[in-house]
Amino acid sequence: MGVIVQKYGGTSVGTLERIEAVAERVKKTRAQGHDVVVVVSAMSGETNRLIAMAKDLDADASRREMDVLVSTGEQVTIALLTIALLKAGVDAVSMTGDQMRMKTDSSHSKARILDVETDNIQNHFKAGKVVVVAGFQGRDENNNITTLGRGGSDTSAVAVAAALKADECQIYTDVDGVYTTDPRVVPQARRLETITFEEMLEMASLGAKVLQIRSVEFAGKYNVPLRVLSSFKEGEGTLISYEEASMESPVVSGIAFNRDEARLTISGVPDIPSIAAQILSPIGEAGIDVDMIVQNTLGDGKADFTFTVHRDDYRRATELLNQVAQEVGAREVQGNEFIAKVSIVGVGMWNHPGVAKTMFEVLGSENINMHQISTSEIKVSVLIDEKYLELGVRALHTAFGLDAEPQEEK
Amino acid sequence: MGVIVQKYGGTSVGTLERIEAVAERVKKTRAQGHDVVVVVSAMSGETNRLIAMAKDLDADASRREMDVLVSTGEQVTIALLTIALLKAGVDAVSMTGDQMRMKTDSSHSKARILDVETDNIQNHFKAGKVVVVAGFQGRDENNNITTLGRGGSDTSAVAVAAALKADECQIYTDVDGVYTTDPRVVPQARRLETITFEEMLEMASLGAKVLQIRSVEFAGKYNVPLRVLSSFKEGEGTLISYEEASMESPVVSGIAFNRDEARLTISGVPDIPSIAAQILSPIGEAGIDVDMIVQNTLGDGKADFTFTVHRDDYRRATELLNQVAQEVGAREVQGNEFIAKVSIVGVGMWNHPGVAKTMFEVLGSENINMHQISTSEIKVSVLIDEKYLELGVRALHTAFGLDAEPQEEK
Repeated sequence: MGVIVQKYGGTSVGTLERIEAVAERVKKTRAQGHDVVVVVSAMSGETNRLIAMAKDLDADASRREMDVLVSTGEQVTIALLTIALLKAGVDAVSMTGDQMRMKTDSSHSKARILDVETDNIQNHFKAGKVVVVAGFQGRDENNNITTLGRGGSDTSAVAVAAALKADECQIYTDVDGVYTTDPRVVPQARRLETITFEEMLEMASLGAKVLQIRSVEFAGKYNVPLRVLSSFKEGEGTLISYEEASMESPVVSGIAFNRDEARLTISGVPDIPSIAAQILSPIGEAGIDVDMIVQNTLGDGKADFTFTVHRDDYRRATELLNQVAQEVGAREVQGNEFIAKVSIVGVGMWNHPGVAKTMFEVLGSENINMHQISTSEIKVSVLIDEKYLELGVRALHTAFGLDAEPQEEK
Repeated sequence: MGVIVQKYGGTSVGTLERIEAVAERVKKTRAQGHDVVVVVSAMSGETNRLIAMAKDLDADASRREMDVLVSTGEQVTIALLTIALLKAGVDAVSMTGDQMRMKTDSSHSKARILDVETDNIQNHFKAGKVVVVAGFQGRDENNNITTLGRGGSDTSAVAVAAALKADECQIYTDVDGVYTTDPRVVPQARRLETITFEEMLEMASLGAKVLQIRSVEFAGKYNVPLRVLSSFKEGEGTLISYEEASMESPVVSGIAFNRDEARLTISGVPDIPSIAAQILSPIGEAGIDVDMIVQNTLGDGKADFTFTVHRDDYRRATELLNQVAQEVGAREVQGNEFIAKVSIVGVGMWNHPGVAKTMFEVLGSENINMHQISTSEIKVSVLIDEKYLELGVRALHTAFGLDAEPQEEK
């Protein structure tokens, strides 16, 4: 008996049949005596359909009007799910972002939540109703429609759960939890029963796209118990815990990786304090995110400067870097478009200094060359050629004892 | 230099190309120096698409949730049209029903407008913007989404025009005005430059479906100058005037007709005062609209009772009437499923008593039998067999001098 917030993404509500299946799942939770808020996304494909229409009219369409447009996607889903719930005998009511007073700032298409009023939801709880809420959308102080950006429904769910002090915020998705690594790469990957908040942040930021990283940060800030589950398969999913890691925590919890990296090096730049800013400013101004930066002094008053970008930004970043090279009198610009990042993640790592060494040995024994290394308290990341990605991830997964015990088919 | 409200229906905004054409038309009006509010419907097909999804889940879906669902249709259009206007260089902003504070009662799917606040629109006017408003939708006092029912966008437009004291409310549709009769039946039908409010009500209620009758009543109540124009063709359309008819008004302004009528007669019922109520109550309770009622006393304490219904309601009405017949001891129930109603309409008619006689003579000379006649100050209606409809309408159109002069092609 408590308050449960359940969030269903676009795939989970992608057809009328799936909406009916969601209604049945909500009905079960309701039958356990919980008050339930359901946060939904647009049906899969719907947001893209709407955006395509707008882009046909104007490739650079007004962001205010784009928000008016795409916010209809979630509104369709709340109505359909509520109709399905009522049909299934569950008393329910839908609420748009403005009806639940989801207040955001005015950054159209990437608004930040400022406040959620829960009076309306609480009143519906008192009347015995399940409340079906549109994710992703809110209103700014001037009553303009805003959206939180792609994946924002996760953040909506966490915000509602925080405001209601919910017992659990359950994120239903098309995977049944957080895995030690991507099961498509390593068939022996195991579902984790729990993962710490910090580990989840690293896994999410490194391409294990189970949850939107913003929603995880948000949940951490407000201490919302977050659980990732499958819409399509029964199971306990993975609980993201905010407790201190116990002494028994495994050293490495998971292997994260990111395939779409590219690496750029500008060689022979003047070794002066302002050089990093000079090199990176034009890149940042072009809206390109930079990751894993290394500056290597050569001793002759010159230095090499290396960083990674998303592969989609590689060409643009190369152009900009060639301009910088002329301006600062660098020797040359080199790049590698086919780089992958592999990381071992685990809160138990910081007091096991041998972990990084093991990682390097494992990769070395497979003849995988590391281009770059970076470390933090709970992860070690290396850059390798993309073609070695699967080999490296599988070797590390086995070496750190993450492979699942052979199981009987359920 | 004034305030113009333009309303574009679903066909006029049915594709992205048409939305761009509407933007061009709005741009022209704006270039004339007017403040412009544009009221739009959902893109044609969209409302039906949404309803079909809901009905798949529950044939008897919650009317509150249906309103949440279908109101997204207009929201999509306001965003797309505003994007098209901005692209065309016209400063514009969209408003949903709640943003413009379109207040209605709580009758979901057929709500009545209570009030429209114009502060928000006026502020956008001051900022030099065209305001694009979602028709058809509003909010009740508890902030629930409501809709005005099919065709309600016309009523929205008139309500906004009335609240703004607009100089004109222009209803853009797929016909270029109000015609003397349906040009598909009578190729010589002429567009009327003006039509009186009363005549328009009769034409609309008799099946000339250019404007929703509620919007005409609403315009009359608030004295809103209403003009019907084509979205696809330049022209002046037809202005609905609220002035007294002049002495020079034509006797008959138009021929209206309604094809989908059915006629029912219950014979030999007791000739007592309560009998009409006894017969019609079950019909009314079943939600069936009844038209053209005649009670004919036979002189033996018995009477015949005849009325018309929409053809779609014929079977159900017959079943109900057979039950009534048993209860009141009537002799028999008869019916005719293929009846049409033809009416001549004109404010000049009341002081030309020979008009009805002419009508009967014209129909008689074509050997068209009249089953029933009803008259009012500005119309005469007759019921005839549907198969004679075209013949009768053409003969009347010619006889009352409504045929267009042969014109050169434009």
